[in-house]
Parts: sequence; structure tokens; C-alpha cells
Amino acid sequence: MMLKSNESIDDLQISGLKIIQNTKGFRFGTDAVILADFSKNIRSGETLDLCTGSGIIPLLLYAKTNTPHFCGIEIQEEIADMAKRSVEMNNLNDKIDICCGDLKNSISIYGKRRFDLITCNPPYMKAGSAILNETDAKIISRHEVKCTLEDIIKVSSSMLTLTGHLTMVHKPSRLCDIIYLMRSCGIEPKCLRFIHNHPWDAPMLVLIDGLYGGKSDVKILPPLILRNDDGSDTEEYEKIHFPNKNI
Amino acid sequence: MMLKSNESIDDLQISGLKIIQNTKGFRFGTDAVILADFSKNIRSGETLDLCTGSGIIPLLLYAKTNTPHFCGIEIQEEIADMAKRSVEMNNLNDKIDICCGDLKNSISIYGKRRFDLITCNPPYMKAGSAILNETDAKIISRHEVKCTLEDIIKVSSSMLTLTGHLTMVHKPSRLCDIIYLMRSCGIEPKCLRFIHNHPWDAPMLVLIDGLYGGKSDVKILPPLILRNDDGSDTEEYEKIHFPNKNI
Repeated sequence: MMLKSNESIDDLQISGLKIIQNTKGFRFGTDAVILADFSKNIRSGETLDLCTGSGIIPLLLYAKTNTPHFCGIEIQEEIADMAKRSVEMNNLNDKIDICCGDLKNSISIYGKRRFDLITCNPPYMKAGSAILNETDAKIISRHEVKCTLEDIIKVSSSMLTLTGHLTMVHKPSRLCDIIYLMRSCGIEPKCLRFIHNHPWDAPMLVLIDGLYGGKSDVKILPPLILRNDDGSDTEEYEKIHFPNKNI
Repeated sequence: MMLKSNESIDDLQISGLKIIQNTKGFRFGTDAVILADFSKNIRSGETLDLCTGSGIIPLLLYAKTNTPHFCGIEIQEEIADMAKRSVEMNNLNDKIDICCGDLKNSISIYGKRRFDLITCNPPYMKAGSAILNETDAKIISRHEVKCTLEDIIKVSSSMLTLTGHLTMVHKPSRLCDIIYLMRSCGIEPKCLRFIHNHPWDAPMLVLIDGLYGGKSDVKILPPLILRNDDGSDTEEYEKIHFPNKNI
């Protein structure tokens, strides 16, 4: 296994999985871990992860579900290559297929109506607000330079099966954009969950589960609270992060 | 002051205001009180309350703001009459104007681009789910028999000034309908607040503030929690309900 300079191997604390990450690049965060957990109960013949980055979401969903096959698409060559080496390192070449490509072309890459579940932890910032002293890779991972929210939701709408789900995590400030775009594209938001540090804080993230062709009626789950009053992790958050801890 | 049978006078615990309510009909609830409080900081030359019922929201907003004039429209004759008598009882005939009419005709009643603030605590249930053993008045107050969410948002869009706000309280299950309809009608949801009994509960209500012609970017406030662990009211909820308590 070739490890490049500025790369490290991190233990995912589940099913013995490991992941390669760039020590100076964009590293997976709480949002990816929580999105994978939020998506784990959606039964899927095949799952696609858009903006897959290091491949963290397919890796975690492999560990948490019985899904037989995962695809992940990442536009940045170096990062897609890193994700492919992570898959290889975990001996999961037959389970997870990482593709370097532009998600705007994903319908021609994967075909229509193929995925029961599409996941996406997209760039959060609108294009134009890019901070120039960051490396390109970080800018592309964080800002809508290469794809917009509309691109993501539109292509998902074509690739989902007729009862397929699109799950996303995003900043709460984009909630109305997501809801409006999903419904405009025939994907009905069916479940939302807000993520708060403390119950008295505004939410820092929101999880959305949309169902292709679903009827209007959204369920809002109890908030996911990350920290106890003393700053330690809540029991629920600890279970999401370290599912094997008490086994 | 004529009080009809089955009517009571209740003290609003603010500015010496009282309200007439039907002891067997639909009585104002926590939702109206919280919506008035949520709307109090929006500066308004003139405010309209749709589905005003007993007139609770204009009465509370009169007490909490410097707004010079309020209108309220209510489709049910008996309830509109009761609201008018409440306004008279409080000597507010020059401040609050209650009209008995169908909000679908409100543009011809009030004219376009007139209100800086429109408030609405609408019927929560979709038409068709009406429970038949209730009185008609209760059915109309609770179910979308006489108007739909779309009617409310469409007429509001025409009557708001160019920087006017529409504030609503509703069941969280209708959140996507509200966001989609508001944006479709040129009203951008700018602020949301979820109301929970306890931090670990799913929200029971949601408050929405939409701005006519606003840019997309919604702020989600910290949750409004109503109860302490022991079931007593939280300090914040107590201040909303009894604002004069510690004065």
C-alpha cells in the first residue's frame, strides 16, 4: 500500500476499517459520520455517495448496513485516488467502487433509476465566498465551485429508483434551498433532524431524508444533541461515533 | 357589554387587556401567544391578522408593540362578532378593526401592498381529515375547510409591502409545504424557530418569519423549550406568557 507524503492512516473504530486522509487537506468530520448513521436504516440494493471525498461515507455504510454495493464519485483526482487506495487497503474492491468524475455527468456514468439511496455531504459554502489563501482542494471541498446544490439534487432525482432516498447533511441556513429544490425535482423531504451542540444552541447542521415521489408530510425528529452540560459527548453521539465501544 | 351564553371573559395578563371567549368553542392556545411574541419585533405601520378568531393576536400585539393600527379578518360570523366585542370592551376601536369576511377576498377588502406584517395562526389540519362529531365552528378553526395554506400565503404575498413580513405558526409536519409555498409566492423564509416541550422531544410547533422579496438564507433560532425537567414552565416560556409578572 503506497502512502503519499502528507497522508496518514486513521482507524475508523468500526469493523476494523481504516481510511487514508491528507494531513493538510480536507479531513472528514462529524457531519459525514452523522450522515452515514442517519442513512443506515434505508434499505438499499445499491448506494451512491456524491462528493465522496476520502470515501468515508461508503466505508461507514459498508460497516453499518447490508448494502451489497456502493459507488462513490469524487471530482478531485488526488482525493479520488486516495479513496481508491483506502478501499483497496480494506480489501473492499468488490464492494465499493470509487470513480473520479464530475457528478454533473453521473447520469451517463451510472445510468438512470439505479440507486435506492444517494448520500451527499456537499460543499457547504456558496461559490463566490471562497477564501483565497486556502489550497484548491480545500476550496473545492468546501465551496460550490464545481457543483451546486441544484446540480446535486437534479442528478439525484434522475438516478434514484422510484422509491429511492436522497440523504444529505448541510448548514441549516440552506434548509429552504434544499426543501425547495428537492420538491421541485420530485423528491419530497420526509424526515429532518437538527444537530445542536447543546439544547440551548441554534442548530449547527441539519440532516435531510428525501423520498423520490413521496407525499408531502415531513417528520422532524428530536434534536441530536452532541454535548452534555459539562462539554463531554452525549451518550447518543458517542454511540454514533464509536458504535463498537460497548460490544 | 353584552356577553352571550357560553361566553367568558378572560384576563390576558398584559396591559389590563381582557378577551371574550366561547367556553365550548375553540379557545386561543399557546400557539397564538407564542406567535404574537415571535412577531413583536417586526416594526409595522399596519398589521393584518388572518384567521384572527377571538382577536387574540391583534390584542397581544397591541400590548407588545407600537404598531399604530391592526386589522383582523375572521370568516365565522359569531366568532368575528365576539372579537369585535372584545375590541370594544378594551376601548380599542380606533386601534383594532375586526372584519367578518373570507380571507380569499381580503385583497379586495384591504387592497394590495398595505401591510408591513401579516400574522396567521391557521387551521392546522388538511381538509378531509375533519372529525364529524365536533361543532362546525371548531372544525372550521382547526381544518382547512374554508381556506388552505396556499390561499393564506398567496393573498399575503399580494398584501405585504415590499419589505413586509408574514409570520405563521404551524405543525412541523407542514414545514415543507410552508417553505415551498412561501418561496413560490415571492416570500422568502428568513427565520424559523421550533417549539419543544422538552429538549429531547420532537418539536410540537414551528414559527416561521418570511420576508417579501427576501434573499435565500434562513436563520434557525435556538429551540424554544416550554418545560423544565420537572414539568414546570421554563423561564423563557413564562416570560412570553406572563410578560408583566416581574415588572
